[in-house]
Amino acid sequence: MKNCIFCKIVQGEIPCYKIYEDDKFLAFLDINPRVEGHTLLIPKKHYRWVYDVPEFGEYWETAKKIALASKTALSAEFVSFATHGLEVAHAHIHILPRQKGEYEFLPNKKELSKPQFAKIAEIIMQNLNE
Amino acid sequence: MKNCIFCKIVQGEIPCYKIYEDDKFLAFLDINPRVEGHTLLIPKKHYRWVYDVPEFGEYWETAKKIALASKTALSAEFVSFATHGLEVAHAHIHILPRQKGEYEFLPNKKELSKPQFAKIAEIIMQNLNE
Repeated sequence: MKNCIFCKIVQGEIPCYKIYEDDKFLAFLDINPRVEGHTLLIPKKHYRWVYDVPEFGEYWETAKKIALASKTALSAEFVSFATHGLEVAHAHIHILPRQKGEYEFLPNKKELSKPQFAKIAEIIMQNLNE
Repeated sequence: MKNCIFCKIVQGEIPCYKIYEDDKFLAFLDINPRVEGHTLLIPKKHYRWVYDVPEFGEYWETAKKIALASKTALSAEFVSFATHGLEVAHAHIHILPRQKGEYEFLPNKKELSKPQFAKIAEIIMQNLNE
């Protein structure tokens, strides 16, 4: 969809720290992370809300795969999921690996450097491919 | 599991405002709601985290069914989902139908009377059964 930032990421017009990609879904690091490893999983096709995605069960199975890889990669205590949908009008699941003590529902934004983002993406991907 | 409040709800030892039940899952209104129609969907069997539920895709397909019924029943603008998991140590998905303007990620707790809870449960169930 024109002017949709996530569609532009899918098209490669805007760069991202990619975590995962298949024929239907794409996952990348949120550039305004609430926790280290904060990942967004989107359908490649434009849908407004997560529940508009026809392959809804498969969408969440994919989120689980990424969540478990992130949990291992970052030695997280657990992983939470959230969907809200007002930030960007393209369906997305937030995947939030939680470190011990990082228990707030919505932690404050974290500042990460480009090398930190790249390193986090790399170690999550390594765990996805194992 | 002993002393698990959600297992007690499944067993019928603690009452709830039931929304939905099948052989694997149970949904009921959160008694500390953040929005009207705030619903919890749990597996009947005790699992610690949502991603421990083996039928994960089916679990979310069920959440979607309830979300769409709630959206219609309450004329909500959209529905958000969240899983955190620290409030009660039994897997649960929060289903949060949002009224226009009710956009905070985690709104303040709402006070509802017993008749209000009962009425909300009734109209969501009606929409589920249509």
